[in-house]
Amino acid sequence: MTPCLDRLDAVRIVLVAPSHPGNIGATARAMHTMGLARLVLVDPRRYPDPDAVALASGATGVLDGARVVATLDEALAGCALAVGLSARPREFAGRVLAVREAAAEAIAYAAHGDVALVFGTEMSGLSNAELARCGIVATIPANPGYGSLNLAAAVQVVAYELRVAAAGGEVWRAPRFEPATVDAIEALYAHGTKTLAAMRFLDPRMPRRLLPRLRRLFSRAALEKEEVNILRGILARIDQRLK
Amino acid sequence: MTPCLDRLDAVRIVLVAPSHPGNIGATARAMHTMGLARLVLVDPRRYPDPDAVALASGATGVLDGARVVATLDEALAGCALAVGLSARPREFAGRVLAVREAAAEAIAYAAHGDVALVFGTEMSGLSNAELARCGIVATIPANPGYGSLNLAAAVQVVAYELRVAAAGGEVWRAPRFEPATVDAIEALYAHGTKTLAAMRFLDPRMPRRLLPRLRRLFSRAALEKEEVNILRGILARIDQRLK
Repeated sequence: MTPCLDRLDAVRIVLVAPSHPGNIGATARAMHTMGLARLVLVDPRRYPDPDAVALASGATGVLDGARVVATLDEALAGCALAVGLSARPREFAGRVLAVREAAAEAIAYAAHGDVALVFGTEMSGLSNAELARCGIVATIPANPGYGSLNLAAAVQVVAYELRVAAAGGEVWRAPRFEPATVDAIEALYAHGTKTLAAMRFLDPRMPRRLLPRLRRLFSRAALEKEEVNILRGILARIDQRLK
Repeated sequence: MTPCLDRLDAVRIVLVAPSHPGNIGATARAMHTMGLARLVLVDPRRYPDPDAVALASGATGVLDGARVVATLDEALAGCALAVGLSARPREFAGRVLAVREAAAEAIAYAAHGDVALVFGTEMSGLSNAELARCGIVATIPANPGYGSLNLAAAVQVVAYELRVAAAGGEVWRAPRFEPATVDAIEALYAHGTKTLAAMRFLDPRMPRRLLPRLRRLFSRAALEKEEVNILRGILARIDQRLK
């Protein structure tokens, strides 16, 4: 999939009746780490609040831009899709998806319009009436004996899946170095064989499994040019000291 | 892949020098939601602490079972694989994987032995020396402008990916041979350092880039137990011949 990180701009995170302002701040932080900016608070118990600012830990832009509304319907106005999070099975007419699939659908919808991910209150989650407003119910796979993720932790997992779905799996890579050529590697093996024989660690008439094992190890590592130079240097030093 | 949730029992979550006991508690909760139970704390600033209990929110079993150790080496002893989390590119990283792929590898290794997921301190993450102990560096895809996940939020994402990997649906390749333990690999590096110094190939007061380069090479190869034995055998023979 080609990256479409701009679709994250079409995603709203909706918290229904959050009790603890600290969770609102931690939610803002979780959103910002994944590049989400649009937070909607439905009837929060305490907001604004210094605890929210403290837990946002620098993600104050998301917090300052948060929209406070009175009802879920207001929060969802204009959305092409609403996805409700639920930790437990519900009698629900819509589609139930794991959060990974739900995130992929949400990002697909985000090409066409706004998308909302809806989280219920800390103690009891979304009511059946609130879930009924959502076209998809998403569930985070969890320990059946203890599925109670902290609210902001659940937002973190969902925001992470939305970013992965939008980014197509990009990741920073270790610096690439110049790979060794096949002939340089063969010369290394030849040198190593000679030195190991000189040390009597290897009997050249009976090499058995040693050389294949070493070849296997180094081919798995995909040797780089400088690494071959280092190994040749070590071998040369051994040769010198054996004289 | 068939589900193998029992492999989660072989997973250790290692927090290096956590500053805030609240994060330890929230980590225990995040672990418990995903069915992880083994928490190891390396030199925590404040622990035990009532803030940890409060944030664990019922996941006190994980907290009570937490092991406190003085060094990262103790935390990793006996592990077949250590995966270090890092938010930013590093020069001497071994294999760098997105957290999803890293979780799949960790679960594959967990069929053969213990696996550690290692998280650095809140302010600065893992040091280069700590990351060098890890065969894989895992990164959580994030906003390049603000990649600072809360510690427990990062654990939540990693624990979630481990559970999804263990629950099935991932394609992975299990190692064919028994992997070397982290402590066996460290003992190999210690032996190699001594022998290279004895050969005057390495100046121990000025090791510079040689040792990180060798670590990088061997961590990319994901050493097996028998390979470590072979390399130790070669080193022992060199030692003998140098006498």
